Amino acid sequence: MMMQTPNPKRVKPATLKEVAQLAGVSISTTSRALSGHSAITKKTAARVRAAAAELSYQPNAQARALRASRTSTIGLTIPSVVNPYFAELAAAVQRVAREASLSTILFISEEDPEELAKALRVLAGHRVDGLLVVPHEENREQLLELKNLGIPLVLVDRGLPETEIPAVTSDPAGGITAAVRHLQERSHLPIGYLSGPMDTSTGRERLAAFHAACHSAGLPEQPVYAGGYEQREGYEGTRKLLDQGVRSILAGDTMMSIGALEACHELGLHVGRDVALVGFDDHPVFQLQPAPLSVIDQHVTELGIRAFEVLQQLMSGDTPPDSLRLPTRLKIRASTGGDTGDQQR
Amino acid sequence: MMMQTPNPKRVKPATLKEVAQLAGVSISTTSRALSGHSAITKKTAARVRAAAAELSYQPNAQARALRASRTSTIGLTIPSVVNPYFAELAAAVQRVAREASLSTILFISEEDPEELAKALRVLAGHRVDGLLVVPHEENREQLLELKNLGIPLVLVDRGLPETEIPAVTSDPAGGITAAVRHLQERSHLPIGYLSGPMDTSTGRERLAAFHAACHSAGLPEQPVYAGGYEQREGYEGTRKLLDQGVRSILAGDTMMSIGALEACHELGLHVGRDVALVGFDDHPVFQLQPAPLSVIDQHVTELGIRAFEVLQQLMSGDTPPDSLRLPTRLKIRASTGGDTGDQQR
Repeated sequence: MMMQTPNPKRVKPATLKEVAQLAGVSISTTSRALSGHSAITKKTAARVRAAAAELSYQPNAQARALRASRTSTIGLTIPSVVNPYFAELAAAVQRVAREASLSTILFISEEDPEELAKALRVLAGHRVDGLLVVPHEENREQLLELKNLGIPLVLVDRGLPETEIPAVTSDPAGGITAAVRHLQERSHLPIGYLSGPMDTSTGRERLAAFHAACHSAGLPEQPVYAGGYEQREGYEGTRKLLDQGVRSILAGDTMMSIGALEACHELGLHVGRDVALVGFDDHPVFQLQPAPLSVIDQHVTELGIRAFEVLQQLMSGDTPPDSLRLPTRLKIRASTGGDTGDQQR
Repeated sequence: MMMQTPNPKRVKPATLKEVAQLAGVSISTTSRALSGHSAITKKTAARVRAAAAELSYQPNAQARALRASRTSTIGLTIPSVVNPYFAELAAAVQRVAREASLSTILFISEEDPEELAKALRVLAGHRVDGLLVVPHEENREQLLELKNLGIPLVLVDRGLPETEIPAVTSDPAGGITAAVRHLQERSHLPIGYLSGPMDTSTGRERLAAFHAACHSAGLPEQPVYAGGYEQREGYEGTRKLLDQGVRSILAGDTMMSIGALEACHELGLHVGRDVALVGFDDHPVFQLQPAPLSVIDQHVTELGIRAFEVLQQLMSGDTPPDSLRLPTRLKIRASTGGDTGDQQR
């Protein structure tokens, strides 16, 4: 066993390596023992703690990161915390990360690429073990740099085409095609679509899926409102589309779904009778409406879990994982004249 | 101007202090210049960047923190991210922190004191400039230690009595007293109260305020359900209280308000006609109900802003601020038979 006596004149703080040498165990065992990891025997943990005490070792996440490059934390950035879809995504990631003994640091970018850039700098500076990011197009270069620095990085909800950064996203085609067909069958035409922003892959792909679905259903071009992922946009878009004479609204995300409900409520329109409405994402409150909402469900919890799994694969140095696409499904409820019981297609 | 030539044989990374000396400016100016702070002139910023380049200085938040103990980040812990009240609190803090050029690191404790303890260790290890914490009783000792270590610390939403840690909380008495009087006037008796957990100051204080309000209104003891800050608790509590014959429900937080709506929806009860309901917190979706909800409003955005201001005062080393209590107010809407127009009392 290699032993090393502490220098009483030391001014610099003891390093983890020195604690490991004094305890006669590996650096990773030392780190785990000091963080209370369950895989370490009580005997080893006691020896490491004694060595740390003898050297006056100061456990400090930053110092540990600089020395060992492991912080047992992952970073997650989401565009909004008041958007229930992203709140649920964050909750799912945190829950599964916690099961893997990792803490999750959360940053909110407020849909602002500059704010996301700042968050990424802070997270990279804190040397998190891995990063889950909901990106904007404008952050493409910075994210590529982070990837090239070797930081395990996975995009979630939104991808960045042609970057080869693995992304876990949902495929809107299934849900949107089924929704258009369903609204056509029930004669809720024309359909007004509340579109998301064009600097996100989700905004672009959902709009393309809507156009494709209308085309394959033999429908002429349907009215589209160029919106954003905010309640206000859903409210304003719904009012404009109703003015254009649409008989149904298809919302492109959770927040615009809430905005659509707000507009109908204010206009005194009975959803499911005066106007049909298909929401996006199966938020619990959508089922508590007088006419529960038909929705396109992205299965956000599943999305968060799968994204974390891909990140874990990257962090463990396994074969670089492929991007994942999860299917979306239409759930038919009373807001489009369906039965109140859930039907999936 | 003090100048120092770089040592070409250096192995250790250059420090911020060395960059400052080479550039002939203060350490704080150097730090601000490297982080792109707007208060630094272009000329100074260019000189600092040149010095940093000459010394191959690696900007790194951890290293910077170890040297200068400033990370320009604050930490915020909230119990839940899917609870809209805490999501709005986080959004308010982040917005006002951002205006002060500070990034906000967010942790979710999932109402678990152990998880909060872990988050506090990570945050203290990352040497954030200040901490805003929604605490549990069980974290009392750890928070006192952090305070004694000199980390600027402010409690928000919940206080810890007898710790002298400044807290920014709301005073439930005003809103709850007005709600009990209002339900009594409208003859919605008996009132069933959905109570929060007893290991939080909010749970204890709101229950005490409910008892006091009933007492001062001359009412006998009213039914109480000992719940928690979750939708499921509100759902189960509402069903149990209705079985006990209550004519109105007063919910002790946002999530239990949603659970109460869920129970009424499932039982086919028309809120505002078959049963009166007072929610807690003025969440936007509460106004989108067929009978918009009367609520006790805590003004969560204001709470977040004031909490950040107190933290800022602490961080700047000013006189230790006192704790703040913000008033709550009843907003009367159709769910208690009020008019649909907002009335405050």
